[in-house]
Amino acid sequence: MTDYRIEVRVTPRRGILDPQGKAVGGALASLGFSGVDEVHVGRLIVFGLQAGNEAEARERVDAMCRQLLANPVTEDFAVTVAAGSAS
Amino acid sequence: MTDYRIEVRVTPRRGILDPQGKAVGGALASLGFSGVDEVHVGRLIVFGLQAGNEAEARERVDAMCRQLLANPVTEDFAVTVAAGSAS
Repeated sequence: MTDYRIEVRVTPRRGILDPQGKAVGGALASLGFSGVDEVHVGRLIVFGLQAGNEAEARERVDAMCRQLLANPVTEDFAVTVAAGSAS
Repeated sequence: MTDYRIEVRVTPRRGILDPQGKAVGGALASLGFSGVDEVHVGRLIVFGLQAGNEAEARERVDAMCRQLLANPVTEDFAVTVAAGSAS
C-alpha cells in the first residue's frame, strides 16, 4: 500500500446561487475593499489515504465525493492526488 | 487597473481541534472507506479583483484575510494571485 495526500476542492456549480459568496462579497465591500467581484466560497478537504496505486486512490476519492463530500446537484469537485503522507 | 483571479485557501492551524475534519473522517469510515486519516476541512474562496499590479493585489487580499476571511487564532491562509478575470 502507498500513502497518498489527497486534496478535494468543492465549489458551487456555476450559475447556482451562492449565498455565502454574496455574503462575503458584501462584507468585503462594507469593510471598504473595492474592485472585488464574483466571490464564491467552497470547501477544501485534505486527508491521507492508503491505496494500492494512484488510479485506485483517485477512484476511491471520486466515490467519496459522490457519496459524501460534494452535493451532486449544486456543487462541482476537483481531486488532486499526490504521493506522500498527510502529516 | 488589471483584473486578477484570486484564490484564498483557509485551513485549520495544525494542532488545533478540527471538529469538521473529525466528522468527515467518521462519516467516511461509516460509509466503508478505509485507509483514510488526518482529515481536515477548510474554505476555498475565489473572486475577481481589480488592482494596479500583482503586489498591490496580494497586499489587499492579505488585509482581507486578516480582517475577514480567516480567523487569525485558529486558521492559516494561503493566497494565489493569477492574471485574468474571475468569470
